[in-house]
Amino acid sequence: MTPLANDTFLRALAREPTDYTPVWLMRQAGRYLPEYNALRARAGSFLALAKTPALACEVTLQPLERFPLDAAILFSDILTVPDAMGLGLSFAEGEGPRFARPLRDEAEIRRLAAPDPAAELGYVLDAVRQIRAQLAGKIPLIGFSGSPYTLACYMVEGSGSSDFHRLKKMLYTRPDLLHRILEVNAIAVGQYLDAQIEAGAQAVMMFDTWGGNLSAGAYEEFSLGYARRALGSLRRERDGRKVPAILFTKGGGQWLEQMAASGFDALGLDWTTDIALARERVGSRVALQGNLDPGTLYATPERVRAEARRVLDSYGPHPGHVFNLGHGITPQASVEAVSALVDEVRTYSRVQRAELRSAGRSATNTG
Amino acid sequence: MTPLANDTFLRALAREPTDYTPVWLMRQAGRYLPEYNALRARAGSFLALAKTPALACEVTLQPLERFPLDAAILFSDILTVPDAMGLGLSFAEGEGPRFARPLRDEAEIRRLAAPDPAAELGYVLDAVRQIRAQLAGKIPLIGFSGSPYTLACYMVEGSGSSDFHRLKKMLYTRPDLLHRILEVNAIAVGQYLDAQIEAGAQAVMMFDTWGGNLSAGAYEEFSLGYARRALGSLRRERDGRKVPAILFTKGGGQWLEQMAASGFDALGLDWTTDIALARERVGSRVALQGNLDPGTLYATPERVRAEARRVLDSYGPHPGHVFNLGHGITPQASVEAVSALVDEVRTYSRVQRAELRSAGRSATNTG
Repeated sequence: MTPLANDTFLRALAREPTDYTPVWLMRQAGRYLPEYNALRARAGSFLALAKTPALACEVTLQPLERFPLDAAILFSDILTVPDAMGLGLSFAEGEGPRFARPLRDEAEIRRLAAPDPAAELGYVLDAVRQIRAQLAGKIPLIGFSGSPYTLACYMVEGSGSSDFHRLKKMLYTRPDLLHRILEVNAIAVGQYLDAQIEAGAQAVMMFDTWGGNLSAGAYEEFSLGYARRALGSLRRERDGRKVPAILFTKGGGQWLEQMAASGFDALGLDWTTDIALARERVGSRVALQGNLDPGTLYATPERVRAEARRVLDSYGPHPGHVFNLGHGITPQASVEAVSALVDEVRTYSRVQRAELRSAGRSATNTG
Repeated sequence: MTPLANDTFLRALAREPTDYTPVWLMRQAGRYLPEYNALRARAGSFLALAKTPALACEVTLQPLERFPLDAAILFSDILTVPDAMGLGLSFAEGEGPRFARPLRDEAEIRRLAAPDPAAELGYVLDAVRQIRAQLAGKIPLIGFSGSPYTLACYMVEGSGSSDFHRLKKMLYTRPDLLHRILEVNAIAVGQYLDAQIEAGAQAVMMFDTWGGNLSAGAYEEFSLGYARRALGSLRRERDGRKVPAILFTKGGGQWLEQMAASGFDALGLDWTTDIALARERVGSRVALQGNLDPGTLYATPERVRAEARRVLDSYGPHPGHVFNLGHGITPQASVEAVSALVDEVRTYSRVQRAELRSAGRSATNTG
């Protein structure tokens, strides 16, 4: 294995000092890129792209041609695991995910089993291997999955929802069934992420998109506990180096202390969390990833740069920050804005560190 | 004016001691009630109910026939103000609100003006007067409006949205236009709530349903600042008694300290906030209202009672708690569950206070 040419992202996750704040963007390969839309139109659908390793590889690399990002993220979906369980994932044009066979009766839930990643999710692992080969050690590759709870939300509800009433009905009337789904999901997500690491992923991220629909008291029981269980079952080293794990619970900003004690190396923050306060609360235990409002990418490059500096100033020039959005890039984001963002993070965070060093030197000189 | 027979709700908002924890439920007059659905079917639509004072009055009183609630809330919608501005509010069956004429160009925004409540929203004020007459001093009546920011979200977007990209685009590219809308909305909401108080509302609530889509840094500038401005312009006394004001920002649990310093008497909490922690953070400055997960109302009466006790135990037997859900009742909630909830809050909170008094006495005896 060639050593990584740019391991800034991995070092920031380990809270080691870096020359600048590394940056990548959730959904960085996506519909805001004309070359993505062209390839998707040729492939026919999002899932055709995601399920064809050569195309998933090509899409993964697209944003790297445009922007000096510090990490690549596998082009895939958070719901590949329940799809491999036989629930039948699809995406209607302009809509979110939908399952043809959501979990609606106890017998189905009892039959649920974790899929064998090599047999059922080989297309993902092939994509990981191809991407690693193409990246050729330039930057690290992030693997990912939905969290056990977020998978369960979609598996029970069949789609996204404003109130997830089927899921909540199960949670409050048949918690045993929900726990059964979550146990299977925790095993499945653990094995799946482990297989991604074996195939070449150098960091992993769990997207807990819907953990924020739980009550404060239920988050540990139904989401965090199972995320931790999945995390506990995967190898955490590859090529002689630790494989860091990131947990992102959208809407979970009030629970950062619990999340920071869960064994994950880093927490993703959505844009509603003040990153300076978050660092005060948990910064000494985990790295933080985030958290610019994705809506910022509708603005002029100048405004985007100012907002990026605001996040960087808020976190401060300390180790342990990975710059990102607080949620995925939207299709309406402008390429120009993304370009300005990535450039500003790189440039301004170098200046921050230089100022810190010079302040340190003058403190030494006068001390 | 007859004095209130039951002013527990108002005293809890003033953080005065009460014999039990008062309880009302957001959307307590709604689709989970068969008598509501029957009346709505006869009226033809939700808006026909809301815009006909006698029907709005009848619907407001429906849940009070079933449950010993401590407050009535005007049956209306959070979007009456922009409807009165001419945007054309409607509700398609099974969907959220929609405006026929959302704000899409600068000229429309420049023309926007606060409606005269007496002339344009007389149907609401008539409903308030009729409800007050019917209540005959039994329990207080809550008036309400959407917050200036939440109104703006719908006015710009035209409907609900998963990412509010039109709103965010305006916020980041033409903040001057958004501020112009918010200024008009703040005046309009202030005059509207003031007119409701004049007509008889004994407490008011501002629903900031979408404030939680803002970044931590933007919440004060675009939501809280204008909510405060609206609050500042309304009379705060009626019948020789203070009219308390409640602010509910869904998804705003991370910003309670800011909200507590805004002049509102009470903060609504959604179910993602730990109410014990919330009380630690702000409890000495404001009352707290909430915050049972609405999904709890799918459970058996026994489970509902246990969850209600959890919230009551979490807040503790201190003054300043108004029991409520963390969001509106859903149509799938069961009447039996609501009945158990209201009964348990009343019964158990009396026991809590008795235990507190007895602990106080034994502390005195042994001290």
